[in-house]
Amino acid sequence: MIIIINSKTKPEKVNDLVNWIERKGLKTHITEGDYQNIIGVIGDTSRIDEDQVKSFDIVEAVKRVSEPFKQANRKFHPHDTVVEVTPEVKIGHGNFGLIAGPCSVESEEQIIFVAQSVKAAGATMLRGGAFKPRTSPYDFQGLKAEGLKLLLEAKKATGLPIVTEIMSAEHIPLFENVDVIQVGARNMQNFELLKELGKLNKPILLKRGLANTIKELLMSAEYIMSSGNENVILCERGIRTYETATRNTLDLSAVPVLHELSHLPVVVDPSHATGVARYVKPMAMAAVASGADGLIIEVHNDPPHALSDGAQSLRPEQFADVSRAISLIRKATIEANA
Amino acid sequence: MIIIINSKTKPEKVNDLVNWIERKGLKTHITEGDYQNIIGVIGDTSRIDEDQVKSFDIVEAVKRVSEPFKQANRKFHPHDTVVEVTPEVKIGHGNFGLIAGPCSVESEEQIIFVAQSVKAAGATMLRGGAFKPRTSPYDFQGLKAEGLKLLLEAKKATGLPIVTEIMSAEHIPLFENVDVIQVGARNMQNFELLKELGKLNKPILLKRGLANTIKELLMSAEYIMSSGNENVILCERGIRTYETATRNTLDLSAVPVLHELSHLPVVVDPSHATGVARYVKPMAMAAVASGADGLIIEVHNDPPHALSDGAQSLRPEQFADVSRAISLIRKATIEANA
Amino acid sequence: MIIIINSKTKPEKVNDLVNWIERKGLKTHITEGDYQNIIGVIGDTSRIDEDQVKSFDIVEAVKRVSEPFKQANRKFHPHDTVVEVTPEVKIGHGNFGLIAGPCSVESEEQIIFVAQSVKAAGATMLRGGAFKPRTSPYDFQGLKAEGLKLLLEAKKATGLPIVTEIMSAEHIPLFENVDVIQVGARNMQNFELLKELGKLNKPILLKRGLANTIKELLMSAEYIMSSGNENVILCERGIRTYETATRNTLDLSAVPVLHELSHLPVVVDPSHATGVARYVKPMAMAAVASGADGLIIEVHNDPPHALSDGAQSLRPEQFADVSRAISLIRKATIEANA
Amino acid sequence: MIIIINSKTKPEKVNDLVNWIERKGLKTHITEGDYQNIIGVIGDTSRIDEDQVKSFDIVEAVKRVSEPFKQANRKFHPHDTVVEVTPEVKIGHGNFGLIAGPCSVESEEQIIFVAQSVKAAGATMLRGGAFKPRTSPYDFQGLKAEGLKLLLEAKKATGLPIVTEIMSAEHIPLFENVDVIQVGARNMQNFELLKELGKLNKPILLKRGLANTIKELLMSAEYIMSSGNENVILCERGIRTYETATRNTLDLSAVPVLHELSHLPVVVDPSHATGVARYVKPMAMAAVASGADGLIIEVHNDPPHALSDGAQSLRPEQFADVSRAISLIRKATIEANA
Repeated sequence: MIIIINSKTKPEKVNDLVNWIERKGLKTHITEGDYQNIIGVIGDTSRIDEDQVKSFDIVEAVKRVSEPFKQANRKFHPHDTVVEVTPEVKIGHGNFGLIAGPCSVESEEQIIFVAQSVKAAGATMLRGGAFKPRTSPYDFQGLKAEGLKLLLEAKKATGLPIVTEIMSAEHIPLFENVDVIQVGARNMQNFELLKELGKLNKPILLKRGLANTIKELLMSAEYIMSSGNENVILCERGIRTYETATRNTLDLSAVPVLHELSHLPVVVDPSHATGVARYVKPMAMAAVASGADGLIIEVHNDPPHALSDGAQSLRPEQFADVSRAISLIRKATIEANA
Repeated sequence: MIIIINSKTKPEKVNDLVNWIERKGLKTHITEGDYQNIIGVIGDTSRIDEDQVKSFDIVEAVKRVSEPFKQANRKFHPHDTVVEVTPEVKIGHGNFGLIAGPCSVESEEQIIFVAQSVKAAGATMLRGGAFKPRTSPYDFQGLKAEGLKLLLEAKKATGLPIVTEIMSAEHIPLFENVDVIQVGARNMQNFELLKELGKLNKPILLKRGLANTIKELLMSAEYIMSSGNENVILCERGIRTYETATRNTLDLSAVPVLHELSHLPVVVDPSHATGVARYVKPMAMAAVASGADGLIIEVHNDPPHALSDGAQSLRPEQFADVSRAISLIRKATIEANA
Repeated sequence: MIIIINSKTKPEKVNDLVNWIERKGLKTHITEGDYQNIIGVIGDTSRIDEDQVKSFDIVEAVKRVSEPFKQANRKFHPHDTVVEVTPEVKIGHGNFGLIAGPCSVESEEQIIFVAQSVKAAGATMLRGGAFKPRTSPYDFQGLKAEGLKLLLEAKKATGLPIVTEIMSAEHIPLFENVDVIQVGARNMQNFELLKELGKLNKPILLKRGLANTIKELLMSAEYIMSSGNENVILCERGIRTYETATRNTLDLSAVPVLHELSHLPVVVDPSHATGVARYVKPMAMAAVASGADGLIIEVHNDPPHALSDGAQSLRPEQFADVSRAISLIRKATIEANA
Repeated sequence: MIIIINSKTKPEKVNDLVNWIERKGLKTHITEGDYQNIIGVIGDTSRIDEDQVKSFDIVEAVKRVSEPFKQANRKFHPHDTVVEVTPEVKIGHGNFGLIAGPCSVESEEQIIFVAQSVKAAGATMLRGGAFKPRTSPYDFQGLKAEGLKLLLEAKKATGLPIVTEIMSAEHIPLFENVDVIQVGARNMQNFELLKELGKLNKPILLKRGLANTIKELLMSAEYIMSSGNENVILCERGIRTYETATRNTLDLSAVPVLHELSHLPVVVDPSHATGVARYVKPMAMAAVASGADGLIIEVHNDPPHALSDGAQSLRPEQFADVSRAISLIRKATIEANA
């Protein structure tokens, strides 16, 4: 950690700050300049809250040099994490996860039909929303517990592990047989929920918040991991920008950046990012080429009659085409990176 | 609601869409153009999900004409709402709320000292965090239930109603004697929490999310109101932009926009918005001049030793100066708008 | 164009607006609702300025249905444009342009060495900056006319057509032998410059501005095209967002969106977008998979001693690896889209 | 300047970097940590290009401690600059500038009428566009030289100094009798233009670009000042964010931040920032309360028939009301800051 102070600061004020830091078991080193002095802080700076340093009024700026996340940090865990969903289905370090299914579970017939279609087309997991976060209280809120039951039926029928979103820690008991619990973008910083999920032993698919930085995503992963659960899958799903041609702006650079900073697997959601079915294929292909460990794609048997997010859902036959495209790009990507 | 379709669309496809709309009890009217036709939809369009309309593949664009919020909408409730916190302390329609206190409650001595100081300087409510949402799991997370108890002590000592943040619906019983429950920016779209708060009868101070639009803020207010609780106070606290000179960008235009769209009172938080104590005064003054119904300001007895957010906290004597400035600007604003 | 007015507006005020529109040779159609009426405007609405419509105080909202760009619009020119740089080097509709070279031209030796290296690795055009837009007046501003001369030497030595940036219309005569004139992000809305470039017959590579929408990029292309020059190549180079892990956020969704809205070729600049050499390869691969018609990549013989933008420059041997990767992804992309 | 390197870097590589820095006449100091070492660079670091430092591959991060702007920097010029427009009309350090007038000059009658109205209401300068930057080539582009002539007529008629926008350095001779030359948001980084304006002796009103940071605005001011012209007035006019309720998001925090970093006067443009006439009054009042040294406001005799930006223009009687409000808030602000 680097602290910048005015070079004309009274020595006793500098001493106050230095003592405060050293009482936390860290060392300091001062470099003097014409206008500013620099205090270098050495040691485990995750013990220091940047904000507290800033509140010393002699401080002009503070910069953290080491990232404040540890368990998610590649520096301390150089090898890629492989998240094991089932003994057959893994994700990370060369294991590619293709997650597909409807935005919302609507009926037994629908979810089983979609599950069979996406399985036939190459999906390795089934997604489907039972608890749905909707901007408007007047929109369809999901089938809830009933939806989870139908998902489990679809799992039984197809063998596909299931991925579904949780919206409150109170619902955890209902998720006992779910294979991967998804934390949606709006709950990425619902820290109470993250801590509870950290007590489970189940893979957690953690979506990046609409306006969260890559480092904040890793800090949220750290909440889960520091509570004991290391099975975290990160998900880039588009960030909010001024551009309105797509629903959000898919930040594919996040894929190599996350791989550099962290050992956790990274999947991409081109459906929510673009909000438009016809952009899903090119962005899915691009995500694979950027190095993603998996994709999560919305597929619906009858998009115009979907109860949510129909505009971004592929029909099963479109998904089959995307799946084929993904395989081609994956093969080329592996060769290009060999 | 306006739906744009290509003018070369086959009539039977247009009929499908029109029938789907009319089955929901709405009327349609088509205007034909050279390249595009326009379907005007008349009636209670909050029953229609924009996304479902977009999933008809003949649809090029959809634009909602009426806002999808109703209870928060000034169109249907033209008069300003006055939220009554206690019989003496009200907010909205000329009642100004000055909420002040530390980011976190740290000790009985601290909270009572700050409460007395801010009361003496003109504050009408006391804020203080007991449950603290922190980006890092390694930072101080608040005194929790103990913090709430200390806040109630400070209320007893000073008579100031208290405002404090909730992070999970499970904690609601602990908030029984709290006067105003705050929903933080990170939970603005924690819909499960909003629905539970909608069942209470207590004022809710709802902060705008970091990257949420003004309309989404109103939709979240709608969640609370449509569950039965009409005592909602809206709070602008800065949005995330590319500018890094301040922690967030305080969007003061939101004040007149919210007053135009909604009848709910609007307060501004210049402390979290800027993140820098020396910018709090000018932005507090600007907020009042823009028409805000109140302010929420961080005050700490000893900012450099605050357990959170010290960098943005005012000392009690600085707060007294800000309070005096606010009074002057309020008087001028009232005269300017007379 | 759709105009929303309050349903309680006095008829004579509505008539004023309708007459104003119809005097411009357009037709109108009114749909009545409970709270709002909708005026549909039919005809060539590019003649109407949205802002003027909004200034009628009865108007609540205006939405353009047809895009205001025409010559760049795929609706009126359904076939892909192929920009012919030289008889051998084309871009668009299956012709891929691989543009590489240093950020700045520094010396004859340097530019010829880089030109030979990138040509050997598969580049089809040479880029190099002679006039450099720099945020600080104290940074290196380019070799200017001398730099253009050196670029022409490199063209003579290698046969590669050259692409270089212009910063002022006054410099146009110096660009006579340049093959493609680049308009940088900061000048995307330097309309005086665009109009002058529209009088030339030379391909223009138009970069998207840091905070410009896709539609504004197309309106800037329209400035060039409506002045007579149809040889426009669009370039996505990252937009400004709150994320700081990369210099800008590369918006690859812009590639399919631009291809849908326009017939012009689209290239991607992963070097400026990320600002980090080690992210160039994955983002170049992703750009190709998203459907880009070309790439523009910075290559320098000795990045640490580059006079500008060394941090994002590849060494020649790294570029050769990227070029090989791009070929593999291109082949897979063509097959995936077949 | 602080440079972070990995603590395991080979000493000879560190030496390369250190020698490179010291050859530029600067000193270095190394602080060693567990994972990272910190090189402190002391001296005039504006001679070093951050980008070049980053291109040494051992460098993990670089942070500038001193700002790279000098002439605009309050550190080196602690006293407020007062820009003298005419002997009677000054701006900065307590001199408030109220600039008003139409977006575009349309006719002699119009500009003289507006000039007289705004003068009567308290304006100290007249604004009016002759050269208009428009997103669409099909929109009205201004009366150009003829417009400048009409502005000078209005100046003669009223005595108000005039402020008008320049779009190209080639037009400078036409601006001889203009009192303040405005550089619009889109040209904030048109560096060729800035350098030419730096050779004049006339006040320059420099608007912040749509997506430019406060520091970039100051670097652009530095371009003008380092070319010899110190009469720069900074202007905040809204930045581009995801919020669409207003045209841009007015960043009023920029006012205190700019006053802290620089000695130059700061004015605010609430008309372009909001794009909506009815939000101009509250935002003008807020700007004054935040400490602005002036305002620039659009006023038109007949907004619905304005040739540009009618939606944000006030009628003369509305401007008179805003002017009265501003006076009240100014008085209160001065008292509050006393």
